[in-house]
Amino acid sequence: MGTAEEIFSIAKKASIAKARATTGQKNEALYSMTKRRREKKADILDPNRQDIKAAEEQGLSKALQQRLVFDERKISARIRALEEIASLPDPLGDCGEPRGLPNGLTLSKRRVPIGVVALIYEARPHVTVNAGALGLKSGNAVILKGGSETIRSNICLGRLWQQSLADVGLPHEAIQVVQITQHQAVNELLKLDGYIDLVIPRGGKSLIDTVVENSRIPVIKHYLGICHTYVDGGTDLEMALQVCLNAKLCQPEVCNAMETLLVAEKIAPDFLPEITRELEKHGVEIRGCARTRDIVPQVKTASEDDWKTEYLDLILSIKVVEDVEEAISHINFYGSHHTDAIISNDRQRCRRFVEEVDSGVVLVNASTMFNDASQLGMGAEIGISTDKIHARGPMGLEELRTYKLVIQGNGEVMER
Amino acid sequence: MGTAEEIFSIAKKASIAKARATTGQKNEALYSMTKRRREKKADILDPNRQDIKAAEEQGLSKALQQRLVFDERKISARIRALEEIASLPDPLGDCGEPRGLPNGLTLSKRRVPIGVVALIYEARPHVTVNAGALGLKSGNAVILKGGSETIRSNICLGRLWQQSLADVGLPHEAIQVVQITQHQAVNELLKLDGYIDLVIPRGGKSLIDTVVENSRIPVIKHYLGICHTYVDGGTDLEMALQVCLNAKLCQPEVCNAMETLLVAEKIAPDFLPEITRELEKHGVEIRGCARTRDIVPQVKTASEDDWKTEYLDLILSIKVVEDVEEAISHINFYGSHHTDAIISNDRQRCRRFVEEVDSGVVLVNASTMFNDASQLGMGAEIGISTDKIHARGPMGLEELRTYKLVIQGNGEVMER
Repeated sequence: MGTAEEIFSIAKKASIAKARATTGQKNEALYSMTKRRREKKADILDPNRQDIKAAEEQGLSKALQQRLVFDERKISARIRALEEIASLPDPLGDCGEPRGLPNGLTLSKRRVPIGVVALIYEARPHVTVNAGALGLKSGNAVILKGGSETIRSNICLGRLWQQSLADVGLPHEAIQVVQITQHQAVNELLKLDGYIDLVIPRGGKSLIDTVVENSRIPVIKHYLGICHTYVDGGTDLEMALQVCLNAKLCQPEVCNAMETLLVAEKIAPDFLPEITRELEKHGVEIRGCARTRDIVPQVKTASEDDWKTEYLDLILSIKVVEDVEEAISHINFYGSHHTDAIISNDRQRCRRFVEEVDSGVVLVNASTMFNDASQLGMGAEIGISTDKIHARGPMGLEELRTYKLVIQGNGEVMER
Repeated sequence: MGTAEEIFSIAKKASIAKARATTGQKNEALYSMTKRRREKKADILDPNRQDIKAAEEQGLSKALQQRLVFDERKISARIRALEEIASLPDPLGDCGEPRGLPNGLTLSKRRVPIGVVALIYEARPHVTVNAGALGLKSGNAVILKGGSETIRSNICLGRLWQQSLADVGLPHEAIQVVQITQHQAVNELLKLDGYIDLVIPRGGKSLIDTVVENSRIPVIKHYLGICHTYVDGGTDLEMALQVCLNAKLCQPEVCNAMETLLVAEKIAPDFLPEITRELEKHGVEIRGCARTRDIVPQVKTASEDDWKTEYLDLILSIKVVEDVEEAISHINFYGSHHTDAIISNDRQRCRRFVEEVDSGVVLVNASTMFNDASQLGMGAEIGISTDKIHARGPMGLEELRTYKLVIQGNGEVMER
């Protein structure tokens, strides 16, 4: 392995070459990866088991251990995702018809790859698969810097990616799993704005802060998911119950799981005892505001910090609010602009929630779990952007491209 | 004037309110501004003359003095731009039809304002008009921090903007010209990521470096325009001559003026004497590579630095290259990804140039001067992005918005 600068210089060249790859070639590489993953399952399962064993020995939390797992079921889900990405249209090429301008020129917009994209992430080996596939199909080179807890799984997946690229004659440097474990080396990477076009940090506060403070390269943050569900006054409480239980219990370790439940005061006396009982049955620890505790006194007391916390675990904070207005204010102040839902039968309040909640994904009468690229027809996501610039919400193929304007003339000159 | 934090906190609230403004209200405010500018020309001309006088007294360069001018002709051009922006479609609202998903949910993409956009720029009072108009119509709040050389013009234009907003009942804080002259204060601004959603620095290396090094807020750089024209072997030399003269002479002080001319060796002996003669007639200083000087020995010698310099003046560097491949390499290495043109009759080489030159705007057989929002049907631009993320090339209304995904359900929950 060379210096960071060498790696990225090679990636830059590989990305330019890849931009000229045909759609057929790119899809072939994706199919080659699915084939390798089907045939070489043991090759992936073994290093993943080693990662999990090491995590146990180091005493990492159960929630984190859960995030490391890359088992048969998860491999199959990734194979389906690769097949879906192969089936999606190529995101590159001309965007609409060329447009004739009054000055005689013809203007066209062409979708092109961003170039070299570096992803800095924690845990979750499936990200290594998604990011490679999305980078490949969108014509970018991707540099994947995963967490040290999954290094064995990631190296194995990186090797499979490079073989799959080579299988179809594409430069294998276009997908690189790098092992930079020292803090200093990440900071060095963040200064290479001549080689890297975009950095995506995906993780908690300290990772995001390090990147934002030190990067000369444009950054799209994939920060916390402090996701809310607001259960409004005019609603079907049985539907609200099922949606809220799903948002908390389906996969508590992922970023779009509900972390705070907001309940309109009008229905709190009916709704809170019921949902509390169900959540407690599933082992969820509840931390409530004072008004919540008036109704369900057995729950713990929420502190100011609870409203700002992404638990990624079987913990839920609950607050009673006056109405949709207070719910919106709470979400915009404490939330992370990730995924927020309203459960209500009142069209006007739903509309207001959708308009005023300043988040990438806003849901009406559905579980926050649906903020997921495969559910939204995008194949897979490199992550979920909590920024507003370039991409918001799930980042799939279309969010990994940029454009150039092409102006065609016949010797036109500008009059002063 | 309050602290920076107070200003931006107010702007944040103003932008949210403005997002609810109707298209009619926004256009009315634009027309109110054109009316004020027509009626109050003297109010603008006087402070602008004072700015120019101060620049003369401080001995600022003629090229910079030229950039400060905001005379009758430029005011009329801005009035036309405001009218054009008013006539353009509202960039906000639903994007396409809602889409039904296999899981039963309905997905729609809604175009929304970015929020609060801070523009940090040098000279050029017309930017204060364009940025205000584009910010207003795209539903953002804009904070305009212009250069100290144009502070009198900018304060006057800011006042007119605020009156125009107030005229139609919109919050006047949504367009603010701020007077932060101390370096420290700009750095403070760049930390306010809770209040500002995007910073656009528009200017030279030291400004861009300061912003990139210090900003916690996402940045879209409007950096140098080191723009090239490549005159290819297979071309109509009379057309090439007219296009190149226009690209250099039309407005040498603007960012899309040609700074480097690349000439294919095949036609250099015919083309160089002719273009050199014409350029010299117009007082252009030419700095050539060794091969250029073999053909036109009277020109100065270009240094390595010349290939990296944005002159914004009557200076041109010229290099003889072997072919389109060397031209592309030179542009991608030394250029600023801004605006580059090929002059050629060979379709294949034109296609290659368009594909491989990594710039926001690439032209075939036309003057680089056409990278201009009003020429491209965009009304006006806040500037020209040299970044790849979010917006590339001219930033108009469509580039000043982001989106959110809205998911509508009927109580759907996710199956594991």
